[in-house]
Amino acid sequence: MTKRYSEDELISKLFSPIAGPEALGLADDAALMAVRDKPLVLTTDMLVAGVHFFAQDPPELIAKKALRVNLSDLAAKGAVPQGFLLSIALPMDWSNDWLESFARGLGEDAQDFAVPLLGGDTSSTSGPVAISITAIGTVETFVARRGARVGDGVYVSGPIGEAALGLWLRENPERLETLPLEARDSLLARYLLPRPRLDLIPLLTGAANAAMDISDGLVGDLAKLTRVSGVSAEVTISDIPLSLAALQLIALKPKLFELALTGGDDYEILFTAGADFSPPKGIWRIGSVTAGSNPPELRDGEGKSVFFKKNSYRHF
Amino acid sequence: MTKRYSEDELISKLFSPIAGPEALGLADDAALMAVRDKPLVLTTDMLVAGVHFFAQDPPELIAKKALRVNLSDLAAKGAVPQGFLLSIALPMDWSNDWLESFARGLGEDAQDFAVPLLGGDTSSTSGPVAISITAIGTVETFVARRGARVGDGVYVSGPIGEAALGLWLRENPERLETLPLEARDSLLARYLLPRPRLDLIPLLTGAANAAMDISDGLVGDLAKLTRVSGVSAEVTISDIPLSLAALQLIALKPKLFELALTGGDDYEILFTAGADFSPPKGIWRIGSVTAGSNPPELRDGEGKSVFFKKNSYRHF
Repeated sequence: MTKRYSEDELISKLFSPIAGPEALGLADDAALMAVRDKPLVLTTDMLVAGVHFFAQDPPELIAKKALRVNLSDLAAKGAVPQGFLLSIALPMDWSNDWLESFARGLGEDAQDFAVPLLGGDTSSTSGPVAISITAIGTVETFVARRGARVGDGVYVSGPIGEAALGLWLRENPERLETLPLEARDSLLARYLLPRPRLDLIPLLTGAANAAMDISDGLVGDLAKLTRVSGVSAEVTISDIPLSLAALQLIALKPKLFELALTGGDDYEILFTAGADFSPPKGIWRIGSVTAGSNPPELRDGEGKSVFFKKNSYRHF
Repeated sequence: MTKRYSEDELISKLFSPIAGPEALGLADDAALMAVRDKPLVLTTDMLVAGVHFFAQDPPELIAKKALRVNLSDLAAKGAVPQGFLLSIALPMDWSNDWLESFARGLGEDAQDFAVPLLGGDTSSTSGPVAISITAIGTVETFVARRGARVGDGVYVSGPIGEAALGLWLRENPERLETLPLEARDSLLARYLLPRPRLDLIPLLTGAANAAMDISDGLVGDLAKLTRVSGVSAEVTISDIPLSLAALQLIALKPKLFELALTGGDDYEILFTAGADFSPPKGIWRIGSVTAGSNPPELRDGEGKSVFFKKNSYRHF
């Protein structure tokens, strides 16, 4: 085996450059954050090779995905990211190259999203690499998941299903050749690298009654939102925005339409807003919040109910 | 396979009872914490089966250890725990029984230490169970690791090496019978269940110039403390407190003395304090902070230098 960084070296060489002053040089037991005059928002997500990404994916992108899924949760709450903590369990065969690339990707995103590393822990594992990130933000107006009101419109912030279709392509590589190159690249890239919608924070804090990020599939996530809000919803599935790339793949295999609406990893924002909200460009109205406690009703363009076998991604 | 909880069920049945109001019923994307008028202290530690504990250990104790190692970091900084986030990757063969016991142990400690669950994430893994906890505290006076001053005394808060010797016994079970029952139980229990020294917060914030918790072995951890403080130290190893149980095992196998001082998992506090500090009962002075940048010098009772092959536990 080639020589590898010691625990001290990998902290000082790879992770310290990403750390903010609160991290105390990653040379203390904990981070110290000054008093904030706004409430804190805290979220954690763990990504495991073979579950959330493929072990052979580029380490830069694995790092970015691990951070971004957390930033996406903050964005959905209207919270501005302030920092994050990272725990990583490295498999027996980790290499300096892999970890350097991982840290490079993490550092790029830490800079681009202005969110410093506050602390962390490195460990080993006999299993696949596991990455847990806890992100901390501050919020002016917290946008809860449970605030949807009867009469609200239901909105999404972008095309749905690209990442789930990208994952399907990874698992069905023989289909890659049947798609235009651009469509293929778009779907694969979206699976690898979500975009946390931090740009929507002003819109959400100004207009949304309830919001969440779409991580486990639109249909199941909407059901979660309506359930905790004590309401139901009607969605017209032809109003759900799909990208050209998604439509091209669905045209080849129509059954994938269901996967697009119920697969995970979108990281767009699902939210509801009152009747006076007029959505700007890039926000799609897909339905309405209704009274009742049933799961959302999905209808096709002619008003007929549509049912899916499975509404969302589940680990168990 | 017997029926297992769904992701929703395990959150609502097992983890919601441990959650504080900030967790929003574990039914939102993130936790919401009110503004605190004191600085925040944040720490994260990940525990992996086969590395930090044995997969067959009682799940209650695995949960408690995962939480306590984080609380220990807060204690060392003088920070009062306010809450924690949990990510857990479950192996393919997890059972309801296992997870119920895990949640029960976690809930007991959350209550005993008044530290609610703020949020979390559950995942699956093809490898061993991995548990990442991020703990959040507030602090009046942060006790940094880098504050040791020349002339300070070096102190520890309790007997050293019990947990490392307990681990050694687990790995050398043929030695179990050679030890008195009480000694054996004491060493094994200490490995399984650390005590976070939250009781020392007033002492540390009042008197310590520098502090850290001893998690990777006393000798190596003291070297970390003096290095970041820009000082050195002299330690008289006969002044290092050892428990009766540790002494009984070391008497049987004298080479284990080195392991006691360099093994991990003590979770006692190592700190330095000025010449005017007079240690209360239960605090041991083991040496002095000296000028220079060399690693701490260890001396036996006759003043002769002692060297160890390996100063601390390392993952890599």
